[in-house]
Amino acid sequence: MGRQKVYLDKLSRFFQIRNLLLRQALAECLGTLVLVMFGCGAVAQLVLSGGSHGMFFTVNFAFGFAATLGILVCGQVSGGHLNPAVTFALCLLGRERWRKFPMFFLFQTIGAFFGAAVIFGMYYDALWDHPGSFNVYGPNATAGIFATYPGKHLTLVNGFFDQIIGTAALIVCILAIVDPYNNSIPQGLEAFTVGFVVLVIGLSMGFNSGYAVNPARDLGPRIFTAIAGWGSEVFTVRNGWFLVPLCAPFIGTIIGVMIYQLMVGFHQEGEARDTKCAEQESVRLTNVNANANANTNTNANAKGNSNDATKEVY
Amino acid sequence: MGRQKVYLDKLSRFFQIRNLLLRQALAECLGTLVLVMFGCGAVAQLVLSGGSHGMFFTVNFAFGFAATLGILVCGQVSGGHLNPAVTFALCLLGRERWRKFPMFFLFQTIGAFFGAAVIFGMYYDALWDHPGSFNVYGPNATAGIFATYPGKHLTLVNGFFDQIIGTAALIVCILAIVDPYNNSIPQGLEAFTVGFVVLVIGLSMGFNSGYAVNPARDLGPRIFTAIAGWGSEVFTVRNGWFLVPLCAPFIGTIIGVMIYQLMVGFHQEGEARDTKCAEQESVRLTNVNANANANTNTNANAKGNSNDATKEVY
Amino acid sequence: MGRQKVYLDKLSRFFQIRNLLLRQALAECLGTLVLVMFGCGAVAQLVLSGGSHGMFFTVNFAFGFAATLGILVCGQVSGGHLNPAVTFALCLLGRERWRKFPMFFLFQTIGAFFGAAVIFGMYYDALWDHPGSFNVYGPNATAGIFATYPGKHLTLVNGFFDQIIGTAALIVCILAIVDPYNNSIPQGLEAFTVGFVVLVIGLSMGFNSGYAVNPARDLGPRIFTAIAGWGSEVFTVRNGWFLVPLCAPFIGTIIGVMIYQLMVGFHQEGEARDTKCAEQESVRLTNVNANANANTNTNANAKGNSNDATKEVY
Amino acid sequence: MGRQKVYLDKLSRFFQIRNLLLRQALAECLGTLVLVMFGCGAVAQLVLSGGSHGMFFTVNFAFGFAATLGILVCGQVSGGHLNPAVTFALCLLGRERWRKFPMFFLFQTIGAFFGAAVIFGMYYDALWDHPGSFNVYGPNATAGIFATYPGKHLTLVNGFFDQIIGTAALIVCILAIVDPYNNSIPQGLEAFTVGFVVLVIGLSMGFNSGYAVNPARDLGPRIFTAIAGWGSEVFTVRNGWFLVPLCAPFIGTIIGVMIYQLMVGFHQEGEARDTKCAEQESVRLTNVNANANANTNTNANAKGNSNDATKEVY
Repeated sequence: MGRQKVYLDKLSRFFQIRNLLLRQALAECLGTLVLVMFGCGAVAQLVLSGGSHGMFFTVNFAFGFAATLGILVCGQVSGGHLNPAVTFALCLLGRERWRKFPMFFLFQTIGAFFGAAVIFGMYYDALWDHPGSFNVYGPNATAGIFATYPGKHLTLVNGFFDQIIGTAALIVCILAIVDPYNNSIPQGLEAFTVGFVVLVIGLSMGFNSGYAVNPARDLGPRIFTAIAGWGSEVFTVRNGWFLVPLCAPFIGTIIGVMIYQLMVGFHQEGEARDTKCAEQESVRLTNVNANANANTNTNANAKGNSNDATKEVY
Repeated sequence: MGRQKVYLDKLSRFFQIRNLLLRQALAECLGTLVLVMFGCGAVAQLVLSGGSHGMFFTVNFAFGFAATLGILVCGQVSGGHLNPAVTFALCLLGRERWRKFPMFFLFQTIGAFFGAAVIFGMYYDALWDHPGSFNVYGPNATAGIFATYPGKHLTLVNGFFDQIIGTAALIVCILAIVDPYNNSIPQGLEAFTVGFVVLVIGLSMGFNSGYAVNPARDLGPRIFTAIAGWGSEVFTVRNGWFLVPLCAPFIGTIIGVMIYQLMVGFHQEGEARDTKCAEQESVRLTNVNANANANTNTNANAKGNSNDATKEVY
Repeated sequence: MGRQKVYLDKLSRFFQIRNLLLRQALAECLGTLVLVMFGCGAVAQLVLSGGSHGMFFTVNFAFGFAATLGILVCGQVSGGHLNPAVTFALCLLGRERWRKFPMFFLFQTIGAFFGAAVIFGMYYDALWDHPGSFNVYGPNATAGIFATYPGKHLTLVNGFFDQIIGTAALIVCILAIVDPYNNSIPQGLEAFTVGFVVLVIGLSMGFNSGYAVNPARDLGPRIFTAIAGWGSEVFTVRNGWFLVPLCAPFIGTIIGVMIYQLMVGFHQEGEARDTKCAEQESVRLTNVNANANANTNTNANAKGNSNDATKEVY
Repeated sequence: MGRQKVYLDKLSRFFQIRNLLLRQALAECLGTLVLVMFGCGAVAQLVLSGGSHGMFFTVNFAFGFAATLGILVCGQVSGGHLNPAVTFALCLLGRERWRKFPMFFLFQTIGAFFGAAVIFGMYYDALWDHPGSFNVYGPNATAGIFATYPGKHLTLVNGFFDQIIGTAALIVCILAIVDPYNNSIPQGLEAFTVGFVVLVIGLSMGFNSGYAVNPARDLGPRIFTAIAGWGSEVFTVRNGWFLVPLCAPFIGTIIGVMIYQLMVGFHQEGEARDTKCAEQESVRLTNVNANANANTNTNANAKGNSNDATKEVY
């Protein structure tokens, strides 16, 4: 046992990456891989079993809790965005540095690419066994296992609008969950809550085009399918549909951020600012008994404002 | 980054609303929008896909967790009622001021209206593609996506009774969840628990008329459909059915409050009152070591009574 | 507002019941009413809608989370047993007084009776609309909405065994959840966990005879159906089947308690006993700094043993 | 009551096992019994009811939350592995002693054996009533209730790959959940999270061969079926398929551990090591006010690193 510990410690020191951004990007990569592996795996199970081993809502469940698991895998390192739109929203609000955005986007796409590859390998036999194995459209199409394609009834304009609404809804909910001035979720349950958000979006906004609401989740597997045998058609089908889940989410993000901030965020933030001023005043007065105060601040649920104040005391 | 922060701070100060009631009403509006958007979205997905992308219980799931998400969005600001019946119950028990009731009712209805509008926009193509797009009744009716309509077997009397029971069940469960003397839920999980309440009501009380149990959730989308193309029939159908989900929930609320209070609430409250008297007595005795006591009160789970006592010490 | 508070306070004092056992029995009654109302409501929705508004697993979900909600409604008052078998198990282990058992059994049965009555009222129209409204057996039987009946393939012996296994499984899981020496669940989440236990039992042990595993949940609604129009046949069908879900659960309870205690419980308890002795020793030594120690015990997750020790310090 | 307590105490002392490893192995046995009883019970319900009382995803739900319940039953005693692959992963990382591995493997297999036996007894009538009661393959095969068999489309190579991927995915998620340097889950919710992992794996990786991803869960019931009437065919079918879920998971474990450690684990561990060094330095400086510091460490969520530092203070 002792020797094993020494060896493991050596390994750990050898492979440790000290660059924070790279470490975070790697974690995002693994998280998005988990999301896409489980999510697209559920679509594959539904499509390839012809409905005997899945239904549309099992895909919703899988994508929802895949998001939860992806966030759990990387959340402590990188925040668990798994989605360039989320990174974009946090950059817009000044909570993440802008240079993270391209790095995360790239590694999230790479993770999604490999997630699709894992599912491709796992269901390789089943894919060949399926009639019309490598069709991009038609009743036996399998390209939809990996990337999203619009339903027959959908025009490009409505599809664009669909992705904007879906992403805006996602961002409003995620902002409510991670808003430091609106702490509604016990620490550690954010991942589950985001999972429920993704689940609910799938249950209610999945009919039009499969609720990508995530440029990386759509682009990575699409590139993979182009390489793996479905060909360039995955990009050209329906007049370049692939651009919709790639671009619309960012517009949806801006709208979602605006709605949340105008209707809830700014007011909570303002109130917190006001409270903080008042608290700082009182802190200055009571600073002589700072030691006693520190003890009373140990309440596990005292988050947000009071913590901010505390930090400034020390 | 620095300049962005300054700009965001300016925006925040510019848009900050200092009137508490208006801020809360706005938050309720957004919360109810989220509830109706996800909930009615799931009905739309079920109806418009002809069952391929949804089932009745996916609607139950969506409404349940849509309630959770709606509460998370606005809960810290306004308490996350999302339902005039809930506001009414809390007013009845003296936990909210009565003037909140009309204000919340109005903004909840407005939120529900816009939630329906979002879903209308999202599924615009699918709606036109659907046979009998704008029917209020018949096998291809789509009005049921937004507001609730009674099943064929249902008489008006039983429908009234149905809404009363449903709302009473909702209120009993919600009172158990938010009762300050019966703290059964860890802080921050109330939203999830309410989601499960709505889910279970849908699973067991949804067959008669679609479990509105919420006047705002039903009225807002109904007004929207009247405007958007379904016409005034949405109000006149089945001898003014729309009055049932508008009025019955309030009667159900009164019954629910009575049942809960008589069977659990009053006794718990009384016991708390008794304990408090005893505690105050002991507090008076130990007041000289108040400082030491404060430290022992930092237990994260010391809620309800002990907190009350603590507040009075300071 | 002030006058309302005074009035509410008067009401509260007037209706307050000071007898603890009666208060607990009343709470159990309401909790079991909630359980049966939601649970049997889901069966009613499944049967009366002919499958369009429910499936077998929606019944499982409803019963599971109905148990959760029932426990939340009464848990802080009475412990939230909702099931005479659970009360019996806790009495066997010396954690509840034996006199609670008949009282709880009676009020749980009364609660279940009224829960069935609520569902009967709610679906009155739908019941009359259903072919074979008041049949106890046959393809259109509706008696199974309220009480449980065995499947065609089931003999009485296997049915007895089925109820024993189901209850033993329930009791093993519940003992693991509430074992004071095996605190695996964060405080306040016991109700949810029990919900999952009931859900899983339904998913895996529901095919034989509908997993009553609860004498009160079965007997109360059965008496109701006998009165409400199904007649005495509900007791005589299949050679007195009603005795199986009435008696077998108690045998299952004994077996479940034995299995859990022999394989986990006794050893954990013993270890706790050993640790406690050691702790008491150390407590005696450090008693002089008891005040300082008290502060360090405020950790919110310090449950079980350490709490026991703490209580003895004061 | 007093006499009962004395008697219970005697029983407890008589049956208490003081050998830690045996106690843990017994707990693992009960936990795996619970897992297999509920999981295989759900498969039995699906197969024997011909789909009326179950679907593939109810099996996924049952296995997921059966894992949760199994972990809750034994988690505080043995860690709740329920799976030799998990024990293997923790041994690989030096977090469990290697001698636990064979012991746990044996008792997990025994638990799985008896879990299958319980379900066999419970559904004995239903099994005889089912056409082709004891077939190992064919359309009416029932051997799949207990152990896993590959789909028709699956080659042995892809099946091997399938089990490797499935186990690797399981291990990556479990390591993220239990990583002491990556505490993303509130204490006590690990069991639920693992349940969701198993659920998601079932939803997305269950089509090929039923996602055993657990040598004990597959081997125990397989031995039981060989004895109970299905015969030695359960081992010989498909050129010794039984070896795949027995061996592949361990290879998957190695891959999963490598992926997680390389992409997240080593870096988090390294950072924790760096922080700890810095903290120890500061601790040495502030050791004179250790008493004051102790109070500020009572924050319920201060886990991992800070706790480590604290322990060294005392």
